Amino acid sequence: MSSKIRLGILGGGGDSLIGVLHRVASSMFDSFELVGGVFNPNIEENIGFAERIGIPTHRVYKDFDTLIEKETALPENQRMQVISILTPNFLHFPMAKKLLENGFNVICEKPMTTTYEEAKILKETLAKTKAVFAVTYTYTGYPMVRQMREMILGGELGEIQKVDAQYYQGWINPIIHDKEKRANTWRLNPEKSGISCCVGDIGTHAFDMIEFVTGQHVNSILADLNYLYEDNRMDIDGTILIRFSKNVKGVIRASQIATGEENNFTVQVYGKKAGLKWEQENPNYLYLLEDGQPLRVLKPGHAYNSKLSLDGTKLPPGHPEGIFDSMGNIYKGIAKAIRGEAYNSGEFPTIIDGARGMDFIEKAVESHRKGNVWVTLD
Amino acid sequence: MSSKIRLGILGGGGDSLIGVLHRVASSMFDSFELVGGVFNPNIEENIGFAERIGIPTHRVYKDFDTLIEKETALPENQRMQVISILTPNFLHFPMAKKLLENGFNVICEKPMTTTYEEAKILKETLAKTKAVFAVTYTYTGYPMVRQMREMILGGELGEIQKVDAQYYQGWINPIIHDKEKRANTWRLNPEKSGISCCVGDIGTHAFDMIEFVTGQHVNSILADLNYLYEDNRMDIDGTILIRFSKNVKGVIRASQIATGEENNFTVQVYGKKAGLKWEQENPNYLYLLEDGQPLRVLKPGHAYNSKLSLDGTKLPPGHPEGIFDSMGNIYKGIAKAIRGEAYNSGEFPTIIDGARGMDFIEKAVESHRKGNVWVTLD
Amino acid sequence: MSSKIRLGILGGGGDSLIGVLHRVASSMFDSFELVGGVFNPNIEENIGFAERIGIPTHRVYKDFDTLIEKETALPENQRMQVISILTPNFLHFPMAKKLLENGFNVICEKPMTTTYEEAKILKETLAKTKAVFAVTYTYTGYPMVRQMREMILGGELGEIQKVDAQYYQGWINPIIHDKEKRANTWRLNPEKSGISCCVGDIGTHAFDMIEFVTGQHVNSILADLNYLYEDNRMDIDGTILIRFSKNVKGVIRASQIATGEENNFTVQVYGKKAGLKWEQENPNYLYLLEDGQPLRVLKPGHAYNSKLSLDGTKLPPGHPEGIFDSMGNIYKGIAKAIRGEAYNSGEFPTIIDGARGMDFIEKAVESHRKGNVWVTLD
Amino acid sequence: MSSKIRLGILGGGGDSLIGVLHRVASSMFDSFELVGGVFNPNIEENIGFAERIGIPTHRVYKDFDTLIEKETALPENQRMQVISILTPNFLHFPMAKKLLENGFNVICEKPMTTTYEEAKILKETLAKTKAVFAVTYTYTGYPMVRQMREMILGGELGEIQKVDAQYYQGWINPIIHDKEKRANTWRLNPEKSGISCCVGDIGTHAFDMIEFVTGQHVNSILADLNYLYEDNRMDIDGTILIRFSKNVKGVIRASQIATGEENNFTVQVYGKKAGLKWEQENPNYLYLLEDGQPLRVLKPGHAYNSKLSLDGTKLPPGHPEGIFDSMGNIYKGIAKAIRGEAYNSGEFPTIIDGARGMDFIEKAVESHRKGNVWVTLD
Repeated sequence: MSSKIRLGILGGGGDSLIGVLHRVASSMFDSFELVGGVFNPNIEENIGFAERIGIPTHRVYKDFDTLIEKETALPENQRMQVISILTPNFLHFPMAKKLLENGFNVICEKPMTTTYEEAKILKETLAKTKAVFAVTYTYTGYPMVRQMREMILGGELGEIQKVDAQYYQGWINPIIHDKEKRANTWRLNPEKSGISCCVGDIGTHAFDMIEFVTGQHVNSILADLNYLYEDNRMDIDGTILIRFSKNVKGVIRASQIATGEENNFTVQVYGKKAGLKWEQENPNYLYLLEDGQPLRVLKPGHAYNSKLSLDGTKLPPGHPEGIFDSMGNIYKGIAKAIRGEAYNSGEFPTIIDGARGMDFIEKAVESHRKGNVWVTLD
Repeated sequence: MSSKIRLGILGGGGDSLIGVLHRVASSMFDSFELVGGVFNPNIEENIGFAERIGIPTHRVYKDFDTLIEKETALPENQRMQVISILTPNFLHFPMAKKLLENGFNVICEKPMTTTYEEAKILKETLAKTKAVFAVTYTYTGYPMVRQMREMILGGELGEIQKVDAQYYQGWINPIIHDKEKRANTWRLNPEKSGISCCVGDIGTHAFDMIEFVTGQHVNSILADLNYLYEDNRMDIDGTILIRFSKNVKGVIRASQIATGEENNFTVQVYGKKAGLKWEQENPNYLYLLEDGQPLRVLKPGHAYNSKLSLDGTKLPPGHPEGIFDSMGNIYKGIAKAIRGEAYNSGEFPTIIDGARGMDFIEKAVESHRKGNVWVTLD
Repeated sequence: MSSKIRLGILGGGGDSLIGVLHRVASSMFDSFELVGGVFNPNIEENIGFAERIGIPTHRVYKDFDTLIEKETALPENQRMQVISILTPNFLHFPMAKKLLENGFNVICEKPMTTTYEEAKILKETLAKTKAVFAVTYTYTGYPMVRQMREMILGGELGEIQKVDAQYYQGWINPIIHDKEKRANTWRLNPEKSGISCCVGDIGTHAFDMIEFVTGQHVNSILADLNYLYEDNRMDIDGTILIRFSKNVKGVIRASQIATGEENNFTVQVYGKKAGLKWEQENPNYLYLLEDGQPLRVLKPGHAYNSKLSLDGTKLPPGHPEGIFDSMGNIYKGIAKAIRGEAYNSGEFPTIIDGARGMDFIEKAVESHRKGNVWVTLD
Repeated sequence: MSSKIRLGILGGGGDSLIGVLHRVASSMFDSFELVGGVFNPNIEENIGFAERIGIPTHRVYKDFDTLIEKETALPENQRMQVISILTPNFLHFPMAKKLLENGFNVICEKPMTTTYEEAKILKETLAKTKAVFAVTYTYTGYPMVRQMREMILGGELGEIQKVDAQYYQGWINPIIHDKEKRANTWRLNPEKSGISCCVGDIGTHAFDMIEFVTGQHVNSILADLNYLYEDNRMDIDGTILIRFSKNVKGVIRASQIATGEENNFTVQVYGKKAGLKWEQENPNYLYLLEDGQPLRVLKPGHAYNSKLSLDGTKLPPGHPEGIFDSMGNIYKGIAKAIRGEAYNSGEFPTIIDGARGMDFIEKAVESHRKGNVWVTLD
């Protein structure tokens, strides 16, 4: 019998891209074996999908409740040990809650829930268990993002004084300017995807990244969102002033109408002693700026990197790794946690990150609705 | 006798960098001849400087008033035709005003004045003359900035929907954290340099650039400035939300504590149809982003560029030009105006740009002081 | 029972990097299941490794001959279908030959053999079977390399007139200048790694890439190799002039003493109508140059890419993929071939590429030894 | 009277680009005053041009001989001190020779002559005078090229072991494939432009650059040139193997059929300890590669640069300078030499560089004609 961790997946069937990302990531370090799940709501498609991806079909269930029932009935050494939730956002909360209540470890896509209230309930639920709970903010697994974090936590920038994160995309542009399309896109429907589109989908990545690399919590925000059309109920662009403390300020800039941009996510952090910059589309470069010194460009796999960063590189310098490898690193960390091995707190995002993300989204919308005023995060 | 335009310069002596920039720029297109001026307050240094730069000393005057007196006494075909003001900021206004009143054309460094009130008076003074008045926002002379403007005005981006400009420097970092240094730096002394450091010095460049390339006026702003220390009276960092109209928004980000940054000035404009991006430190590239199309990188000197852009390139593609060439282009435009030749409104910034810059600076400080609220520009 | 293709692996145990690369690649498209192999010469390490990577140990064999014996004794629907050879170079030939003779499909690391003679024998062996034989020139799996090939084959560059490939590394630098180290490095020992170090290891990648993207065969070469020290028997640097035909020329530049370089592998192809450039360390960009046009930068996942390129992208534009994904694409193609599905000839390199590589290596050394003269490839 | 150096110019009239380059460069450091010359063969155009560029016309002569006659008749303190030769290549030699014989300092465009024989005669002529003789290999004036030289000469790379220079252009592409155009282009006519097109025009820049930055002389070369068509007598592409000594090798790659390239001139030098790379189209960056260290990117104007480099920067870091500034630096060095001030040997290229360039061109053609064999430079 395989000694791998038994993994189940909810959602991610058919042509789901997030499904591919999680499956590949889970297989990268020989740690997980996908043993079943509920990939599609339709049972035939569900079985067909399992066959297509070459896994046994007897643990492919017709729905979530059946999965819980059947899996909990299995002996502990056969039962799924961890379950990845890749379903639409509004299902994250009920599924995660029930999984925790039934003793499963959970890997949950972001946004973790649809409201901050749900997030807080989930935290309480988790507190009563010994489960591992991970939220897959994928970008935090990149070796150079980890290196950025370790350098900042290690004091290489000195006291942080300025933070700037950008997440610019253009994909909603052809939709938003078409009255019919914008009315019928689920991402722009608050009933289906929560109270925010741009802040909820990508602003939250930028927010999490800032807190991840600085190791600090944002204290308050002032948001100016853009809805562009009267009949559009969801923000598709937003600039959010942030304060870590009275004199440590920054800005999060997110847009889905930055025409022609793909996934232009950047983060810049400046401290008293030095600055660091990173770009998601060129993830293998980390730029170190020091007053009066040549710019230094750090790359993965070199001995000068931190242990956390090196743990996320599979090949020597010069072999570019990408987003699958980044997610693979997060799964690697989760495997350590499930196995009870020691791991660094930066190896995967937790429920705390997930909950702070929900707080951020709600407060951003609140700040905007109140007329662009400062709102304090919890 | 030379047929060049007779140029005088106020300030710019000694090791002045702005002096070198203007002298080189003025000589680039064989259009100006530097005939004299007041380079230094001290007459010996003044004469010594003239000798060092190899110009005749008989029109090097002991002070500004003497220059006015002597030059106006010369026959019109010998008199200085245009005078560049490169003196400290607080002298711009009185000098410019008196020059206009005495019939000279004026080239004025930015910020044009120290208050918006002065700027308005200067506009009135100019209105009574036929003089040419240029404000040297140097960066608007770059061929690819001109190309950006022409493409946007020509509708290639469609309706503008999002604007973002960044001007990040780190030079004040070693000063601001040293109590003594920050108390003794003239740039941080409001008596010497006006009410703002960061917004006044570089934010205003970003503001002008945005208006230059879009051909539109910013309507209102909300500023969050940073002073970092209680005993520091001048902003050294600021993020400024901007609105062109209800749904056309953007942000200006300026900082002098972005440790390790040199002159990292970028501008991004996104329209319904496409986006354009430009970076001052790599000024010969203009990035055109279109949904679902390969990124296009435009470079100077190609026939695909606009007439205004091509007018600012002296050599064929592949020969990088820099900031001296950019300022040279502005002088070239000014020469056309002085000679009464036809020119494009984008060839040099005028008093309108200078006055808007002052309005912007004052309103940014006002917005911040009132608690980060929206303030409308004139 | 899983419907995946049953894969065995020879070599790649312990901390082998090539082992990680092949395992991850094989799992990427849900097509292969690793069922056993011989990972290490030592049987305990072999079993221990299998346990570490979580696969059943009953098909982990003590040596290659045992694997052949036991696997061929299994019913066809249980037997390994394809075997990846990741052992030291000198074992490639005997293993591949015997595998083919016993009816297995083969995936072989490069260089395929240690001599061109062996390569020719292998071709003959293969000709008598119906087996699939792939040689893992990893870099040909990148989406933008595939796009480069398809654009060139589709005539978008016009007739090719100039080719330039560079593969610069610096890793041998600290070894070559140390008399003891250079005497004891297996890569510099012809008995262990064939007649060439630099040309054999990386020059061959450049050669294969050139033939892959142009779809043309190099006709003749003139090589100038560098051994740097008298007591060093293996080239560690070489520049190789190439000719496709009388007037279609190019150059391959390979070095392992390009101090500080990591894996700086680039290819530039210029045709009558346009040029294309690609860099391995930034693999998600393909540069299209046309006379008098803006540079175009193509990126993976866009509809403007060819079918072959799009087949190699798992996520939408803006999600960087890397070398694991590139190798994954090669395995994907191999899976199609094994399953008898239709596939494009560019989906994986074959024995022809492997044999041409061996011819190239031998002729390069011959050209150099004869005093840098032209030598014709078969 | 101006204390500037009195400069005359031969050629460079009308729309000449090289004329603009030299005029702007000469004016950059307040050191030269253009007092006359022979800009055009036609005297009316000559005068008209002088008027257009705003210089007095009384020292604008009808031809070269008249210039010599009239200028030598002037008192020494009025006579032109230095004369720039910007005429077609075949005139460089006779003009330079006569100027030297008449006591003038000379600035000569490259290639310095049309044959190596002429170059040697010129060297002898110069040896009999005290004149300053500069050859304007423009690119050597860039601050980061100067920095590259100083770092290499200062031993920061250790012993040099590998050199690679590329100069790729595409401008001849539309000409070479058109039978009529290629027959009627002066650049492809050996009677008009010497024995080589590509090597003579751009290969020589690469050669000079390599010798400039390494401070070493190339010992021997093996060239493979391309003429592409039978009826074309001039090389339009060439790859040239080079050797500094038995084990220090390199390559010069030049092409004018690299379709879509503009002025893609790069130089890479690798030593035992480190490597340096520079690109002409992004001239303000110098890349320092060290084994196991982050890449370092040096930029102009920083205190970490050498004195020679800093002498070539007019503004603080972050203000890009370009090719005009590079040529300006060369003129600045020439001014020092003419004034008898101390200067660094890297401040401007001399007749030695010019003569070596001619030797290189002739030997490259010889090597190719003899069947791509090694030929030794003087």
